[in-house]
Amino acid sequence: MNRLFANLPTTVFEVMSSLARETGAINLGQGFPDDPGPEDVRRAAADAVLNGYNQYPSMMGIPELRTAIAAHYKHWQGLDLDANTEVMVTSGATEALAGAILGIVEPGDEVVLFEPMYDAYLPLVRLAGGVPKFVTLQPPHFRLTEEALSKAFSPKTKAVLFNNPLNPTATVFSDSDLALLAEFCRKFDAIAISDEVWEHVVFDGRRHQPVLGLEGMRDRSVKIGSAGKIFSLTGWKVGFVCAAPHIMKVLAKSHQFLTFTTPPNLQAAVAYGLAKDNGYFEGMRTNFTRSRDRFTAGLRTLGFDVIPSQGTYFLNIDISALGETDDVAFCRRLVVEHGVAAIPVSAFYAGGAVKNVVRFCFAKKDSTLDAGLERLADVV
Amino acid sequence: MNRLFANLPTTVFEVMSSLARETGAINLGQGFPDDPGPEDVRRAAADAVLNGYNQYPSMMGIPELRTAIAAHYKHWQGLDLDANTEVMVTSGATEALAGAILGIVEPGDEVVLFEPMYDAYLPLVRLAGGVPKFVTLQPPHFRLTEEALSKAFSPKTKAVLFNNPLNPTATVFSDSDLALLAEFCRKFDAIAISDEVWEHVVFDGRRHQPVLGLEGMRDRSVKIGSAGKIFSLTGWKVGFVCAAPHIMKVLAKSHQFLTFTTPPNLQAAVAYGLAKDNGYFEGMRTNFTRSRDRFTAGLRTLGFDVIPSQGTYFLNIDISALGETDDVAFCRRLVVEHGVAAIPVSAFYAGGAVKNVVRFCFAKKDSTLDAGLERLADVV
Ligand SMILES: CSCCC(=O)C(=O)O
Ligand SMILES: CSCCC(=O)C(=O)O
Repeated sequence: MNRLFANLPTTVFEVMSSLARETGAINLGQGFPDDPGPEDVRRAAADAVLNGYNQYPSMMGIPELRTAIAAHYKHWQGLDLDANTEVMVTSGATEALAGAILGIVEPGDEVVLFEPMYDAYLPLVRLAGGVPKFVTLQPPHFRLTEEALSKAFSPKTKAVLFNNPLNPTATVFSDSDLALLAEFCRKFDAIAISDEVWEHVVFDGRRHQPVLGLEGMRDRSVKIGSAGKIFSLTGWKVGFVCAAPHIMKVLAKSHQFLTFTTPPNLQAAVAYGLAKDNGYFEGMRTNFTRSRDRFTAGLRTLGFDVIPSQGTYFLNIDISALGETDDVAFCRRLVVEHGVAAIPVSAFYAGGAVKNVVRFCFAKKDSTLDAGLERLADVV
Repeated sequence: MNRLFANLPTTVFEVMSSLARETGAINLGQGFPDDPGPEDVRRAAADAVLNGYNQYPSMMGIPELRTAIAAHYKHWQGLDLDANTEVMVTSGATEALAGAILGIVEPGDEVVLFEPMYDAYLPLVRLAGGVPKFVTLQPPHFRLTEEALSKAFSPKTKAVLFNNPLNPTATVFSDSDLALLAEFCRKFDAIAISDEVWEHVVFDGRRHQPVLGLEGMRDRSVKIGSAGKIFSLTGWKVGFVCAAPHIMKVLAKSHQFLTFTTPPNLQAAVAYGLAKDNGYFEGMRTNFTRSRDRFTAGLRTLGFDVIPSQGTYFLNIDISALGETDDVAFCRRLVVEHGVAAIPVSAFYAGGAVKNVVRFCFAKKDSTLDAGLERLADVV
């Protein structure tokens, strides 16, 4: 067996969700909402699966969805994308990430990664034979600095792979951070692989800044999005990739042999959903903001040290103040003894260096959050 | 960009389907039926997407589907599979193939491949850093021989990757061929990655022989299946992998970073479908047999040299008798001048050696086949 995979642990999200299922714990670990998602979008999918086309669609995605993605990003992010040559549909953002990394990185290429990082990034870079170069972002602002980027980028840098908004820190890179990153990409002729699955989940009036909109980045970026995250239907596994034609041509080739295509019925429903009016997307943000505030207030009342969340489904607590030094042991106790699943943030570091942060998903019904808080009451 | 992918052509199935869409040709190329698929299965999916769970399911697949797969293979193929540790759901058979190859093969490992072969196999083996060892199967029976296998297997052989029933030849490996292959796998300690997506589509009383049922192969095989092929819903992209626990543990790791999971609504509908009674599956075979016979007879009446089909959605013609020496040019003429899309079988050979065979998909309504025949009338 391939030792890279044989030596890999099961992803922490699955581990904690399994534990939650087994123990009946309230699952505030893996990032998914517990409401059923927009009924009209689900109805569109039901209609398409019953009355629509169920055979292989075009491997790039059904034309209606590619057009809808281009229009959506034009409206929300001011991007001019050609639906025919610059947009591709994938079986979730995970496939989009795998395809981008495998399609771009060759053995020996260096890839810049920012810690903390999503747990799929490093194994995929290794699978491609890439050499990871880490930049460890520092709390509380997790900013990019010239000094740190200078150490990581080199003439061998093929790509930088990052997540904005950033899971698990729940921070959003500032315009000046992104401008700095773009400067390094241009200088070192590197491609930015930008995982923007949380683009719609930003709070307090923030607006998402897509990598493709940065100066000089239009032809050297891969933007990855997720319908599952946009519509709170995480099981649908409909992802998007946007890139200039010369990059897309190659990504289409990795896609054709990773999954080839994505269910056309779900694609049709996502095309319908992306055209919803501003009110839907703003309402979603308002709801998540409410949940964030409710859960933050609840945790603070209980005495937890909550780190503010600017975006994503998540917020973090610092467990140092509780005298805790091992986030994994703490999360195990939370789920087994207190009946609440959370994610130890050390899983987002290659070396597991940071051991004092624990992530909660607040994208839940009030009753779920309140029940979680009740169970957390005797932890402090 | 990764040169492996940058230098790869677009898969012939997409190329021909795009051409068919553009030109309005009758598409007898890519393998998909043109009937809408079983209504009750589609209804089950519609119900699940509207009223069921739409968030991340377990990464191994929903328990109902894993149980249904194990029961289905027990009933049809006499296999004893543990639904918890030996069955995994993937986003189509393509992902299952990619995950198996990437999960098993390490750089430098030899992988035995039989030509003609499905066009995803070789790029995936190369992506994993594997060294392909080809066995070219000879018409008309495409049999495995001791002599050919002896030349291909070596102490460096990590795996043999094959398709049974075999697309595009539409042949089924005999029990003695499979026994010989198993002998080589045991002798050289190799894993068989067996793409059995056509397992239900075998004709004239044949029964599919799964690799997991061969002597000594229970612990050294990966069986890949496809709900899309079983239910004529090729767009659904629900695949299955079955393997002993020590292999499955590693395949789960490649799966978790290729797609992670598969839409739970479609999974629920496939679980429902797999439990259908014998009549459904036998009826499907009867229908495909009728289509095969109708199309074979029609082609023969027109003067085409039809090679008999034992299974799959396909049959082939030998174009030598027409004085044709270039299957690609012939197929291009078929689609552009005659309005019928087919697949040039040279695409299934690494060296493109065989240029005299053209594949048609007969899994179509009578009216489609008849219209195709009408257009083919003036080719001979
Ligand atoms: C693919 S499971 C992980 C979902 C997620 O984005 C998270 O919990 O961080
Ligand atoms: C994934 S498209 C190819 C479908 C198929 O199995 C074929 O046409 O051979």
